[in-house]
Amino acid sequence: MGDRAVISIDGMGGDHAPGIVVDGLEAFAKARPEFDFLLHGDEAKLKALLANCPSAAPRTTIRNAEKPAITMETKPAEAVRRGKGSSMWNAIEAVKKGEAVAAVSAGNTGALMAMSKLILRTMEGVHRPALVGTWPNMKGVSAVLDLGADIVADAEQLVEFAIMGQAFARAVHHKPNPTIGLLNIGAEDLKGHEEIREAAALIRNSKLDMKFHGFVEGNDISAGVADVVVTDGFTGNVALKTAEGMAKMISQMLRTALTSGLTSKIGAAIAMPALKKFQSGLDPRNSNGAVFLGLNGIVVKSHGGTDGYGFSMAITVAADMGSSRFKAELTEQLVKLAAAQAAAASTEQAGAGASEETAK
Amino acid sequence: MGDRAVISIDGMGGDHAPGIVVDGLEAFAKARPEFDFLLHGDEAKLKALLANCPSAAPRTTIRNAEKPAITMETKPAEAVRRGKGSSMWNAIEAVKKGEAVAAVSAGNTGALMAMSKLILRTMEGVHRPALVGTWPNMKGVSAVLDLGADIVADAEQLVEFAIMGQAFARAVHHKPNPTIGLLNIGAEDLKGHEEIREAAALIRNSKLDMKFHGFVEGNDISAGVADVVVTDGFTGNVALKTAEGMAKMISQMLRTALTSGLTSKIGAAIAMPALKKFQSGLDPRNSNGAVFLGLNGIVVKSHGGTDGYGFSMAITVAADMGSSRFKAELTEQLVKLAAAQAAAASTEQAGAGASEETAK
Repeated sequence: MGDRAVISIDGMGGDHAPGIVVDGLEAFAKARPEFDFLLHGDEAKLKALLANCPSAAPRTTIRNAEKPAITMETKPAEAVRRGKGSSMWNAIEAVKKGEAVAAVSAGNTGALMAMSKLILRTMEGVHRPALVGTWPNMKGVSAVLDLGADIVADAEQLVEFAIMGQAFARAVHHKPNPTIGLLNIGAEDLKGHEEIREAAALIRNSKLDMKFHGFVEGNDISAGVADVVVTDGFTGNVALKTAEGMAKMISQMLRTALTSGLTSKIGAAIAMPALKKFQSGLDPRNSNGAVFLGLNGIVVKSHGGTDGYGFSMAITVAADMGSSRFKAELTEQLVKLAAAQAAAASTEQAGAGASEETAK
Repeated sequence: MGDRAVISIDGMGGDHAPGIVVDGLEAFAKARPEFDFLLHGDEAKLKALLANCPSAAPRTTIRNAEKPAITMETKPAEAVRRGKGSSMWNAIEAVKKGEAVAAVSAGNTGALMAMSKLILRTMEGVHRPALVGTWPNMKGVSAVLDLGADIVADAEQLVEFAIMGQAFARAVHHKPNPTIGLLNIGAEDLKGHEEIREAAALIRNSKLDMKFHGFVEGNDISAGVADVVVTDGFTGNVALKTAEGMAKMISQMLRTALTSGLTSKIGAAIAMPALKKFQSGLDPRNSNGAVFLGLNGIVVKSHGGTDGYGFSMAITVAADMGSSRFKAELTEQLVKLAAAQAAAASTEQAGAGASEETAK
């Protein structure tokens, strides 16, 4: 494989693996001839599937996994304890060893996060990793994080999320200068949790290379007010799932309405090309591929129930991240953040000293 | 007016007041002959509008407000300081004086909440009031609270929200035995914030008359998994606005698709009755009327931009709450909660004593 970029793929993760994984791999390989692949899992099965993949087969090395695949029911703690040698473990380990620029899996999210943290470790300067995802909005897409890697985040962590989200938007959404918004419940500076207000102050006072929009509200996510929306993992997870639930309900209501009688069915049939285009705008496969940011290596989580097309989108995210300046940019910004915080701390200390003197 | 139930209405609150307020009043008065009304605001204007309201006029007493109306720009603190004598203030005060069973306003939410708290005070046994709203779901509607009265809630407050939401679902959604869900990011008992897990334990251990479903996730709200969804005001506000934003985006995408060419327009025209029915299922006017729960009196907040039909729905919520057993039920349940907590505290103390003895 030499100097070509390699992507490491968990062949056995997800509801319809390994079939959709190999389908997605072939679709991606055809579109992006500059990448090679490591495919982890049941060698016999994967080999048989790859036989029908003229683009992927010559550029893919199959690595047999000795352990059975991690299932959707495996608890994270168990995955970490007993997962060594599974296709998921090996896919991540290839990134750690420098054999691949990124790993992709459609397997169990909790297990993937726990294993990734254990194998790759958190990057220096980052307190907690975060899960970032692509959210369709009225103007295109935005990046939202944290989607649930952790349940809380203090001000400093929120700023780190902002930095990581910005670098993600550059790498994956190809936006050179994305705007960053902090999710809050009002646009005014006085509202919301203290850590959010502190994070806003920290961003404004740091010399970060960042286009900071300020606070955004829930409805601003879909409106596309900011390119990157930053929040803690609890709120981000609730927001994402609530929006998914709403989209599902509306789609079902529309389907019910348009099949509710002969006239509606005729109308819907005539408008079908437009309705299909509408549907594809909401197709979750187009935004498939959440990235676990802040580790020493890139791990992409594909939706477990996706198909080959959806999985190819997750590989695209891994490819874009793997060939980007993500890590270098993150390191540069973290240095600036640390400097700003050190300066703030020394000012505070000087201030405290001064007021002590005044008190005397 | 005698023994008839009276509803107190802020005639001047909202973007299109007093026009839509009086329109809504007339629509409600026609449908519900058992209620009388107090209408607060600019007497001359209100009198002129009421002249065209054959159902409402004979049952409405206009109370002139000396102070100018609270605007959408008025800060809550200012509203409290200088709002006495405004139509909003007088509408709430009529509830305090026992002249009306509930107040309704389409005015500034922050000002209404602050004034209501000041005038009516928090009910005994309730730590913090909560804002509850009606959320359409696949099976009908659910009640979601807190939508932003406060930004945090500890375990005990979450249980109080559950009790208040349950009583609201009985009174307004006419569900005799509603199921209660706690909003979390996973169905497992180990996930989520400590206060949510504690609240679940507290509900299970209290002898509350409550059908507790356990944890629900964001997507479960629109799926209608629970009749009442309980969360803190920050999360609830983000979830509500995120869902509204998603619904708005989808509606706009659908409109764009169905007007994108002659064929689509023809199809849409044929399917128009079905599309209109679909739209009305999503009509926010049908779920208009959020209630500020936990005070010594009922205050209903109508959406500021609604029309007459929407405002009549908010009056309906006030009427249903005002003629319900809400307060009695709440009091009974709060007594049970206090007893359960006292029992838990004494067990804990006994337990602590025992382990101290063991330590000796």
